[in-house]
Amino acid sequence: MLLIGSQFIGSATSRLGVEAFSALNAATGEALPTDFFVATKEEVDAACDSAQQAFSAFKSTSNEARAHFLELIADGIEALGDVLIERCSAETALPTIRLEGERGRTCNQLRIFAKVIREGSWRDVRIEPALPEREPIPRPDLRRMLVPLGPVAVFGASNFPLAFSVAGGDTASALAVGCPVVVKAHPAHPGTSEMVARAIIKAAVCAGMPDGVFSMVHGHIETGEWLVQNQFIQAVGFTGSQHAGRALCNLAAKRPSPIPVFAEMGSVNPVFILPGALAERGESLAEGLAGSVCMGVGQFCTNPGLAVAIRSDEQQAFVNRLAESVALATPGTMLTRGIKSSYQAGSGRLKSHPAVYTESEGNELETSVSGCVFSTDANSFLADEVLSAEVFGPSTLVVNCNSVEEMCEVAANIEGQLTATIHHGPGDDALTKRLTECLLGKVGRVLYNGFPTGVEVGHAMQHGGPYPASSDSRFTSVGSAAIFRWLRPVCYQNAPEDVLPPELLKSNPLGIMRQINGERTTGEG
Amino acid sequence: MLLIGSQFIGSATSRLGVEAFSALNAATGEALPTDFFVATKEEVDAACDSAQQAFSAFKSTSNEARAHFLELIADGIEALGDVLIERCSAETALPTIRLEGERGRTCNQLRIFAKVIREGSWRDVRIEPALPEREPIPRPDLRRMLVPLGPVAVFGASNFPLAFSVAGGDTASALAVGCPVVVKAHPAHPGTSEMVARAIIKAAVCAGMPDGVFSMVHGHIETGEWLVQNQFIQAVGFTGSQHAGRALCNLAAKRPSPIPVFAEMGSVNPVFILPGALAERGESLAEGLAGSVCMGVGQFCTNPGLAVAIRSDEQQAFVNRLAESVALATPGTMLTRGIKSSYQAGSGRLKSHPAVYTESEGNELETSVSGCVFSTDANSFLADEVLSAEVFGPSTLVVNCNSVEEMCEVAANIEGQLTATIHHGPGDDALTKRLTECLLGKVGRVLYNGFPTGVEVGHAMQHGGPYPASSDSRFTSVGSAAIFRWLRPVCYQNAPEDVLPPELLKSNPLGIMRQINGERTTGEG
Repeated sequence: MLLIGSQFIGSATSRLGVEAFSALNAATGEALPTDFFVATKEEVDAACDSAQQAFSAFKSTSNEARAHFLELIADGIEALGDVLIERCSAETALPTIRLEGERGRTCNQLRIFAKVIREGSWRDVRIEPALPEREPIPRPDLRRMLVPLGPVAVFGASNFPLAFSVAGGDTASALAVGCPVVVKAHPAHPGTSEMVARAIIKAAVCAGMPDGVFSMVHGHIETGEWLVQNQFIQAVGFTGSQHAGRALCNLAAKRPSPIPVFAEMGSVNPVFILPGALAERGESLAEGLAGSVCMGVGQFCTNPGLAVAIRSDEQQAFVNRLAESVALATPGTMLTRGIKSSYQAGSGRLKSHPAVYTESEGNELETSVSGCVFSTDANSFLADEVLSAEVFGPSTLVVNCNSVEEMCEVAANIEGQLTATIHHGPGDDALTKRLTECLLGKVGRVLYNGFPTGVEVGHAMQHGGPYPASSDSRFTSVGSAAIFRWLRPVCYQNAPEDVLPPELLKSNPLGIMRQINGERTTGEG
Repeated sequence: MLLIGSQFIGSATSRLGVEAFSALNAATGEALPTDFFVATKEEVDAACDSAQQAFSAFKSTSNEARAHFLELIADGIEALGDVLIERCSAETALPTIRLEGERGRTCNQLRIFAKVIREGSWRDVRIEPALPEREPIPRPDLRRMLVPLGPVAVFGASNFPLAFSVAGGDTASALAVGCPVVVKAHPAHPGTSEMVARAIIKAAVCAGMPDGVFSMVHGHIETGEWLVQNQFIQAVGFTGSQHAGRALCNLAAKRPSPIPVFAEMGSVNPVFILPGALAERGESLAEGLAGSVCMGVGQFCTNPGLAVAIRSDEQQAFVNRLAESVALATPGTMLTRGIKSSYQAGSGRLKSHPAVYTESEGNELETSVSGCVFSTDANSFLADEVLSAEVFGPSTLVVNCNSVEEMCEVAANIEGQLTATIHHGPGDDALTKRLTECLLGKVGRVLYNGFPTGVEVGHAMQHGGPYPASSDSRFTSVGSAAIFRWLRPVCYQNAPEDVLPPELLKSNPLGIMRQINGERTTGEG
């Protein structure tokens, strides 16, 4: 596929800018074919205008039409075949097999949203028919449902070039409910982004969607700032660093008309390893944890950057085995040079910290990095917040506690997290309960006897947690509930039947599940 | 009842401050008995500490226990009897009959939340049981439900001293789901606030709720700022002016750990009066609108401050009749001297505006105010945003349009609103549809052939709209859905049964409606 490097503004392309950049081969650092042009402010605004223009028609499309659109996107991404995977692998250094899996997840995600939208109950319809005889005053007829907010800005993430990028969960969930999307492509995989953008645009055309329902611009920080500040943008979806996520939140809060930002900013995802689990299966736990730490060169939001255990012989053996396993893991190339430098700086800070012992140092290789295991004691951990900062990459810090009390104090002092994990075994019941109670106040998801990497896309997932894991813990960025970030309720009071959308008609022609006087039913109301 | 004027920190009272203020008789300006002390920062922090201390136990109370607590609050408020109404009437100049109605609404609201909580489906439980045989990887067991955010700060509003104040919808919805509440009492009705606070505290003690589940502090702007900045406060509920609401949002966004603020900031609630409605019932519409404008001395968030009509003989007769009816309405005393001054300034700005004609000037009386009716043309309205600013009080501006197109242009240019209203009659079907489509993008609630004052408390209400009507249009501050402002999802992955809350157990011991693999059922899962 010949890449063109332009902006995609609806079904048109645009190239007004003069500043260009290349995608780099993540493994070799060499420039890959095609120059990508940085969008001008005029182009960013044109994309947002176009989204706003499309909004009115797009929000009125049927559930079936939008579901079909999402399925066409999935089909289109699959139809790109190996070309997509090859370019993506070159841009990200992620192996083919991982990217094939991620492509499957991305397309599955689109199809899940299609199914959810088609089913129809996502409108959360609530009807209270008029009670003209009620005393002291009659009750009016009230009919409430969710409607899309308007154009949504989506920021592609570097670490999931397919599943959290151009056609990732943010885009899929926004399109599903009728919000046009303007994506800012991640500059580390612009070729992948262009291929996927073109698949989306083609699907929009084939599905008869209004022009402007999807646009994509290339650029850097300023580009994203223009996007978030554009008057037509009504919400923002972002996955990335805490620093960048907070900056976008601040910008959105300062707008003349502030808008919601859902920023998923990652976390250290503490893993608590309880004495019974260590005694029962310390060795396999160490190997499992090493696998989770090193998976994908540690480049996951849910990568376990912290392991907490109580000192014992088993614990010492566990740490030794963890260090060995991480040391034996195949080194990997990171997504970008910038991420590699940050990883080196972050792991270097731990290495040189006076209260940290390096259990496994990792080899310094030219293009790839290997994992690190560090350890410290609970008091040092609690005394210095630098030790709880996320190191993005295959690094984990073991916190050695002298007692159950110290372990609980560590749990009580962690900040907001996407996940926390408890490994328990015989005799750990009371401590498992106690930690659960404490950790639930800090996290979006708590796991037992597993590892946090690997986020299931379904109805029951929660990916998002108290700040700074995400900017609004009331929402998730993964799973079918992700649509609720882009919806708001409207209520019709005493509306004539002919202005009501089909969802709210007394006869329920769509046959969807609704709440009538607080009771769920597919009947009339 | 002897008022004490202290802070209420859980079940204790505190009086560390030296600055005191009196409640004023709103009609006479004379000081009412009891000095109220402004809380010190120490006291505000103590209230928040106490809320945080209570949170762990409070969130674990049963639905039944919290429902009973809410009902005891309602009983306690009713048991205050005439003493409450008399004090409240003196502090606010609101008539007894209105306050009795508002008390009924406040207690009804508490009982509705009790019912919703008891029923149990508010947890929005979503379960996806493990699929160990799934290929290529097994699905873990996922169980998700909503949990309370933590301590909530509530700001009492001046204009509903009962229904949007100490035990109003914000407090009721937060307590319902297990969030402790710290109220900042509105300084215009501190005696009313104390009486209601004591009823809540008594109910908390009788219901065996943990101490600290409710606190109330007195004070001014700085007091509220301390509250919003306190590290334990996890969300804010506010009803009041746009200026104050935005200031709280800005403050919350700048915290080291930002928190959500639901600020309901009012709006001008445009009423569109279509030609067919004017022809059919112009006179009764004028009288109905005059009644809505003057009701409660115009001191409602949903007061109709804007009426839009197309020039015609009927429209001229309508405006004349509106002006007459407003002029004939009994003058009323406003809630505070400050509100009266603002009303005079706001209506004065319209009076002196070169493009505004004064249809009914209102009499200037010593303590009370009467209503004003102004008119302008659509072009002038569109050209100067001062004409669309809210004037809190019994004032309305008629916008005269030369055509349907101008009316639609006015609709297209209004900012976010709590409500918009369309009065339609024979021959108005097409315009009703067109305006509906346009207005739905701007409002939380659209009404037909009615008046926006009077907000039904039920399952289907939406009170909140696009900015600046409220700070987050995705939520409502009135009705049973108001609880979702204070809840966030948590997901348990592969949790042992003995750490799961009853809502998530396979056997569904609470018998609540849950989603199992996306299907709603009260069965096992």
